[in-house]
Amino acid sequence: KRIRDYGIYIGVLKTGKFNAITDVEGVSVGHETLVEGDNIRTGVTAILPHTGNIFQSKVPAAIYIGNGFGKLAGYSQVKELGNIETPIILTNTLSVPAASEALISYTLDLSGNEDVRSVNSVVGETNDGWLNDIRGRHVQQEHVLSAIRNASSGPVKEGNVGAGTGTICFGYKGGIGTSSRVLPKSLGGFTVGVLVQTNFGGVLEINGAPVGKELNTYPYRDKILNDADGSCMIVIMTDAPLDARNLERLAKRGMMGLAKTGGIASNGSGDYVIAVSTNEAVRIVHTSDRRFNTMELLRNDEMSPLFLAAIEATEEAILNSLFMASTMTGRDGHQIEALPLDEVLPILKKYR
Amino acid sequence: KRIRDYGIYIGVLKTGKFNAITDVEGVSVGHETLVEGDNIRTGVTAILPHTGNIFQSKVPAAIYIGNGFGKLAGYSQVKELGNIETPIILTNTLSVPAASEALISYTLDLSGNEDVRSVNSVVGETNDGWLNDIRGRHVQQEHVLSAIRNASSGPVKEGNVGAGTGTICFGYKGGIGTSSRVLPKSLGGFTVGVLVQTNFGGVLEINGAPVGKELNTYPYRDKILNDADGSCMIVIMTDAPLDARNLERLAKRGMMGLAKTGGIASNGSGDYVIAVSTNEAVRIVHTSDRRFNTMELLRNDEMSPLFLAAIEATEEAILNSLFMASTMTGRDGHQIEALPLDEVLPILKKYR
Amino acid sequence: KRIRDYGIYIGVLKTGKFNAITDVEGVSVGHETLVEGDNIRTGVTAILPHTGNIFQSKVPAAIYIGNGFGKLAGYSQVKELGNIETPIILTNTLSVPAASEALISYTLDLSGNEDVRSVNSVVGETNDGWLNDIRGRHVQQEHVLSAIRNASSGPVKEGNVGAGTGTICFGYKGGIGTSSRVLPKSLGGFTVGVLVQTNFGGVLEINGAPVGKELNTYPYRDKILNDADGSCMIVIMTDAPLDARNLERLAKRGMMGLAKTGGIASNGSGDYVIAVSTNEAVRIVHTSDRRFNTMELLRNDEMSPLFLAAIEATEEAILNSLFMASTMTGRDGHQIEALPLDEVLPILKKYR
Amino acid sequence: KRIRDYGIYIGVLKTGKFNAITDVEGVSVGHETLVEGDNIRTGVTAILPHTGNIFQSKVPAAIYIGNGFGKLAGYSQVKELGNIETPIILTNTLSVPAASEALISYTLDLSGNEDVRSVNSVVGETNDGWLNDIRGRHVQQEHVLSAIRNASSGPVKEGNVGAGTGTICFGYKGGIGTSSRVLPKSLGGFTVGVLVQTNFGGVLEINGAPVGKELNTYPYRDKILNDADGSCMIVIMTDAPLDARNLERLAKRGMMGLAKTGGIASNGSGDYVIAVSTNEAVRIVHTSDRRFNTMELLRNDEMSPLFLAAIEATEEAILNSLFMASTMTGRDGHQIEALPLDEVLPILKKYR
Repeated sequence: KRIRDYGIYIGVLKTGKFNAITDVEGVSVGHETLVEGDNIRTGVTAILPHTGNIFQSKVPAAIYIGNGFGKLAGYSQVKELGNIETPIILTNTLSVPAASEALISYTLDLSGNEDVRSVNSVVGETNDGWLNDIRGRHVQQEHVLSAIRNASSGPVKEGNVGAGTGTICFGYKGGIGTSSRVLPKSLGGFTVGVLVQTNFGGVLEINGAPVGKELNTYPYRDKILNDADGSCMIVIMTDAPLDARNLERLAKRGMMGLAKTGGIASNGSGDYVIAVSTNEAVRIVHTSDRRFNTMELLRNDEMSPLFLAAIEATEEAILNSLFMASTMTGRDGHQIEALPLDEVLPILKKYR
Repeated sequence: KRIRDYGIYIGVLKTGKFNAITDVEGVSVGHETLVEGDNIRTGVTAILPHTGNIFQSKVPAAIYIGNGFGKLAGYSQVKELGNIETPIILTNTLSVPAASEALISYTLDLSGNEDVRSVNSVVGETNDGWLNDIRGRHVQQEHVLSAIRNASSGPVKEGNVGAGTGTICFGYKGGIGTSSRVLPKSLGGFTVGVLVQTNFGGVLEINGAPVGKELNTYPYRDKILNDADGSCMIVIMTDAPLDARNLERLAKRGMMGLAKTGGIASNGSGDYVIAVSTNEAVRIVHTSDRRFNTMELLRNDEMSPLFLAAIEATEEAILNSLFMASTMTGRDGHQIEALPLDEVLPILKKYR
Repeated sequence: KRIRDYGIYIGVLKTGKFNAITDVEGVSVGHETLVEGDNIRTGVTAILPHTGNIFQSKVPAAIYIGNGFGKLAGYSQVKELGNIETPIILTNTLSVPAASEALISYTLDLSGNEDVRSVNSVVGETNDGWLNDIRGRHVQQEHVLSAIRNASSGPVKEGNVGAGTGTICFGYKGGIGTSSRVLPKSLGGFTVGVLVQTNFGGVLEINGAPVGKELNTYPYRDKILNDADGSCMIVIMTDAPLDARNLERLAKRGMMGLAKTGGIASNGSGDYVIAVSTNEAVRIVHTSDRRFNTMELLRNDEMSPLFLAAIEATEEAILNSLFMASTMTGRDGHQIEALPLDEVLPILKKYR
Repeated sequence: KRIRDYGIYIGVLKTGKFNAITDVEGVSVGHETLVEGDNIRTGVTAILPHTGNIFQSKVPAAIYIGNGFGKLAGYSQVKELGNIETPIILTNTLSVPAASEALISYTLDLSGNEDVRSVNSVVGETNDGWLNDIRGRHVQQEHVLSAIRNASSGPVKEGNVGAGTGTICFGYKGGIGTSSRVLPKSLGGFTVGVLVQTNFGGVLEINGAPVGKELNTYPYRDKILNDADGSCMIVIMTDAPLDARNLERLAKRGMMGLAKTGGIASNGSGDYVIAVSTNEAVRIVHTSDRRFNTMELLRNDEMSPLFLAAIEATEEAILNSLFMASTMTGRDGHQIEALPLDEVLPILKKYR
């Protein structure tokens, strides 16, 4: 069950219908999960901002580097041109090349792209090497293409699925999580959806309750425990018409949502936030006879409610990844427990 | 009383002796408070990384721009050269020029600086224009010089003092706050001290308890309330031997501490984090016969505990600013209440 | 005479009518020159993107830090919000506070700004401390306000004027220079205008001719000569409708123009490029009843000709500053010679 | 023949023994050239900062994004941690994933790396799609590994070789070029070496002579010609002991060298500069029992001569790539001529 099913409501804003990134119209998500033999525990998650040819109809985007100990592909072109031209793929650290290759194949093969000779693959990753034989690099192009093909709107699978199959969060089993917020009409009525791949550490807090402290499972008392390292990929979609500059500002708030779960962006963490506007009015066509793009852009002073929405949805998406994950045994018999709800729920009760 | 005096302990790490930025050896803080007539409610706070000639013996430093709607002076040279060469001054938005001027005067007049013709003043600010006649620009050079002269080690005054005299935080009276953390010897034994000037908004949380929600004093339900805007200046000092790159990483964690109090870095907020290493072994002398600086620098993989310390100390410093501030009446009869402890303390009790 | 008057044509694009930043419609420039007694050799230059209330009708803008050893005011808010809300002031290093203060006064006093309590002054500087008693800080608010009042369209005074009164470039007298380029109609027909305040060094090249090498006046053979240090402020205006992202890209090209004169952006140089779009269709009103700004923005793939224009105009503006400056004697009898045309012109002849 | 063989000397500083990036002690370069059938014209170039296990003994590094329309891999971790842990690979745009994959394989397979589960591949690229069947993605892992194995010190092959096999520069055949500078002992005696992969456009200048203008082969008179697009990869190595901050500053000067050849960093150009210090005293061991790295770092005020060296060596490396390239026929019969020396040399003569 998701955290909200336990009567725990993060923040003050309302969620969308599915409380998922897919509440942003047109967004679809697909997973490909690889659980094979004793040692393969990994996968791929694809997030598509719209269902058309993304290369021909690019979306305004920004990537914020919360902590750059990671291998995300595609940063500099997004920064320079302010847009994304492929699906966004999440996978494990050493499979970024396979996923990038697959995005190139996907893009070159799309109808209308016969003359395309340059593709900026956007691929995020976290390191699932404790549970997964990451050195084996088991993710193949076909898995990535399958995740893209699988993508659908509606509810999103969470926990040990796709790119979250083998990840660890606050020492417990992490994975994929999602959440959304819808602003009141008076504030624009926009939707903000977030999807996360959680693989990081810190001192776990759940809706303000000091769970990590109570369970005594936090690092940095006397020695550095491994489990603070890892990474978090955060993908934010919104239908608000934003340009790259304001999307970068929105992306920065993702790290503030992460902070509220007790994450600390440790040295070894690759924490990235990718923010995209799906609003059709701000799409950027690949080629045009016109010299200009005419755009209706949200004013700076309308951004604050979106910031709050991004913070809340990120926090809840991370918590959903923990609540929806289940215990996993993987490489060399390593086992990571799911969040122990029998212990956690009483703590949450105590703190409200 | 400070928040810890109510038995509320933020985080898992220990504080220094004074639970103040001055727990970092050599750091001193001075205030100059301007409360005059009905309309002047402002001031100056000076933070000195060491007691010597800072221009001649510069400190490694970085400034992270959490949200850049602010007028901080000195950013680019700190970024380029990786050091700070003046005391750090905090004041109100429209008094940045006066403070910059004063830092130049201060530096030119120091013995040994007779030939100095270039000074990079570092001045942060928040906007106290609701309580203070900010357009009157009442801060003069002499006030800044007085704050520097007043600087002392030991306990630091908090609340409505210095640059915090007229600030507002989460709709309540904000001000100056401070806190510190000391790492266990096994993690290096370093001290991290934080001082904040709080003037921002969001949905107040205190040690995880949803105070803003309970008190129903948060923005962005139906309309944008003003009180989410404002700014926060965060100054972090540490005796860990860090270079500018790792100080910038440390500075970024300040915003994560702010997030844990419910701050959202709203559009209109000028949120900056200045991080400095006071370690003598990493000082940068202004002129040298040597071609090289020999430095013993903390390794990247030793940074994580410092990150946690910065997050905790920032969170607690912000809360101290609220707990130590008192109700203030100012410009045009505007009145801002102190945090209503009679309502807040029961909420905190309920949530633990 | 300007360099073009000697039959030397920089680049391949055409200039505007005045070959000045004021060729961009609506742009005006004003100087205030302080030459007093033996030791005061400084001044102020004001560049206004339009003649209205800039605070109420902001202009999209970006600032690129070529080398950040400088004290430019206003960087972070321009970066965050993507606009400038005051005239741009250039002056000497230690007079940045006076100029910032003056911009605040100017803005607060404008009709319609009675409730303004926050102003982001944009002030650039270079260090004229060799010829000028810079420690005396002789620039007063009134000088800055006078430069703004003096601002006019049409031809721009160059050389030892305004903020260029006491500057040094490649060891010769530098100063203010300006130039412009107009794109052919087929490429959009836009105008790019540049104004520079030159105070830097390197190995002087004039239209490709190795003048510094021939005159044997370059640094870094055996020891570091002072004259490579200093700074260059570059202001670029264009009527092309650009947002802050593409303006930042345009600004970066300013440094490429500087490179072509032989500048090296030495360690001690504060090299900044401020780029502004004056196009009325992209103005940002301070307050609005509308949630959106509707903008017609130039597409990324139309930017390249503007890049070439910015490079050429920057190169020529720098050269104009040298050709138009005259020998100056100042502080403590220091004398800086004008570019020795009797030696330079033959070299230019030899190399064509 | 290289440009210097024609008696044309760029700049004022001396070159190293080979006038190549390999003049920096320990640096080696390897190429793998793919010229197969009518349509395959591509390759791989590997640059190794030292001959040991680079993962275990990392080198301080920075990457500057001159213009980010490119697919370089590895940016964010270099930025965050300040070091590079693999050989640097250059190849074509769509082969970045193959090269990244190969660098992972290379690193995992090195003795001592048996437990490595995270590798930050650094791969640069330019688009050789005019001459090469880039969509065919003919570069395989084995080609990359072969380029690394081939790496040697001493003279470096230039022109149509390795990653430069199919590139185009100023409308002529570009390719790989290299050059170096050695500072006088009085300025530290350091060596700066540069290697470039040239595939960009603009208005060609050779040692200041307006060759593009004379040959009438420049873009942006009436329409946008394709040949201004493309990209340039610039790799700078130095034995000066620099940290990441000063390496980023050094990297920025690479773009100033490019500017002097007439490059404009057009919209479609992916221009990146990778700067590395090979000095053994600043190596970063992957794991250490020590909490600190003791480093002897060059002071900021010693950087300027290195900046000049980087500018000169980049300019000359680009020109060498043009002088050493030969006419190439490739995909679909496309032919790109070598720089027409019979026309160019007279122009160079005319302008000196």
